[in-house]
Amino acid sequence: MSFKLELEKRLYRINDIITGYLPKEEGYYKTVLEAMNYSITAGGKRIRPMLMLETFCLFNGRNYDVLYPFMAAIEMIHTYSLVHDDLPAMDNDEYRRGRKTTHVEYGEAMAILAGDGLLTLAFETAAGAYEKVDENSKDALSIYKRIMRAYKVLASKSGVHGMIGGQVIDIEFVGKTVTQEGLDRMYLLKTGALIEASMMIGAIIAGAEDEYVDIIRDIAADIGLAFQIRDDILDVISSDNILGKPTHSDEKNDKPTYVSIMDVEKAKEEVASITDRAKKAYEALPYRNEFLVELITELISREK
Amino acid sequence: MSFKLELEKRLYRINDIITGYLPKEEGYYKTVLEAMNYSITAGGKRIRPMLMLETFCLFNGRNYDVLYPFMAAIEMIHTYSLVHDDLPAMDNDEYRRGRKTTHVEYGEAMAILAGDGLLTLAFETAAGAYEKVDENSKDALSIYKRIMRAYKVLASKSGVHGMIGGQVIDIEFVGKTVTQEGLDRMYLLKTGALIEASMMIGAIIAGAEDEYVDIIRDIAADIGLAFQIRDDILDVISSDNILGKPTHSDEKNDKPTYVSIMDVEKAKEEVASITDRAKKAYEALPYRNEFLVELITELISREK
Repeated sequence: MSFKLELEKRLYRINDIITGYLPKEEGYYKTVLEAMNYSITAGGKRIRPMLMLETFCLFNGRNYDVLYPFMAAIEMIHTYSLVHDDLPAMDNDEYRRGRKTTHVEYGEAMAILAGDGLLTLAFETAAGAYEKVDENSKDALSIYKRIMRAYKVLASKSGVHGMIGGQVIDIEFVGKTVTQEGLDRMYLLKTGALIEASMMIGAIIAGAEDEYVDIIRDIAADIGLAFQIRDDILDVISSDNILGKPTHSDEKNDKPTYVSIMDVEKAKEEVASITDRAKKAYEALPYRNEFLVELITELISREK
Repeated sequence: MSFKLELEKRLYRINDIITGYLPKEEGYYKTVLEAMNYSITAGGKRIRPMLMLETFCLFNGRNYDVLYPFMAAIEMIHTYSLVHDDLPAMDNDEYRRGRKTTHVEYGEAMAILAGDGLLTLAFETAAGAYEKVDENSKDALSIYKRIMRAYKVLASKSGVHGMIGGQVIDIEFVGKTVTQEGLDRMYLLKTGALIEASMMIGAIIAGAEDEYVDIIRDIAADIGLAFQIRDDILDVISSDNILGKPTHSDEKNDKPTYVSIMDVEKAKEEVASITDRAKKAYEALPYRNEFLVELITELISREK
């Protein structure tokens, strides 16, 4: 089967999994539930749950029931971060993925609450994973430990020393001249941290050895960095139409990016060299997942 | 020792516990860490962690190390909800506890992120509880289960079907005529849910039987309701000075409250009758904690 078909098959499956954890739009506080579902069903690429699933498969994970809630949770966290980032007080974006952003559609108060709701639902969903474990099985203790470790990774990589920290640096960098090292630091938190969480959790739930979880974390950090630099490049070389959001937004918002500190060709070389490092680390592992390699290649060379 | 002295002793201890989990104000993204600490050290009454601790003691809990992270977590969640509620797009409040609100002090973007940061830190902090359990002890499996059950309670009671749902109803009720039943529904979510989480987690971590956890949940719901009605009353009968925030704010914001649908004396009777019901449920339990009873009495008859 071609990579594209495999990707579609997985996307379909992942959307199905996520949908299973979304709230029913009913009751007194229906509006916020609609806003949450509006945001998360906006047609995202589901990169994070996909990386989680593929890393899980890389390490021959079997307990899918325990993994699924974490796959939904990571996408909820990614979605909440977009909803809050788009707010007027933050990036003030009106369109995303070709649709109105949540605050434009539902108002600012509801967008703040929908973001809070998605973040909290992520932890509620992940917290339900333990109910899928048979407490009388001989490895219950070990799987409980994996779940709690995964829970901690999920929270810490999303938090102030992870994704939120990156968002803060992003705001503080506006209008400033920054070094490549400064940009890397921001990207590793803003984008890298959640990719790290995705792949680490896949490995942890599958029962990977600690040393491999560490290697996966490093590979994920590189993927996050390359992915974000590719984002910078696309903001300059793509069109609004293809990207589903306005291009040249970084320049307009006076945000330093890779293409503001070096030319596009040099930025592409950086992506290639970071990807190369990640691939080498992967090749040193005693495990294989061909689809994961193709997925990563696609992510860092994507056109939208 | 007098109740007031006991209360101060506990407050001191609880502040100490919370402080131990707060982030150091350093690094590239220092601003958000400052804003988080600014919000949580604003001199709150620490009602939720105190109720958690006292319910834990009621059920003769011993594993304090496991409880402490949850005590800090519940206060972080309460604090984040205040930071976001105060935002211009929400209640647009400029003062709280006699100090400028977070967005007035740090700007709107940073207040949104500080709220997100506190919410995420709450789950990260609680997630660390399992590291305090000796996995070789004979009851490790049982304590792991308590911890995961407590995570789920923490997340679900804070979420869209809990506190956030209440906040949404609050917004949607502005300017409307509502019934007492409608108000109760809002209060049980907006205020009740987090009080329920506090007391349920105290009971769960202590190892209380399921039937007692259910009774505690009902008692907590009543305390939350009575507490919130008392809040309505204070908004009318107190002064800005004593309350540390502007009084008559509900009327100004066109929010329906108990004192907008009935007179103050009748509202006080409602508080008394709800409290009475909670006390009866407590008296039917085969456990005692005299301080808990005094604390609850203080909460529902407080002057600020």
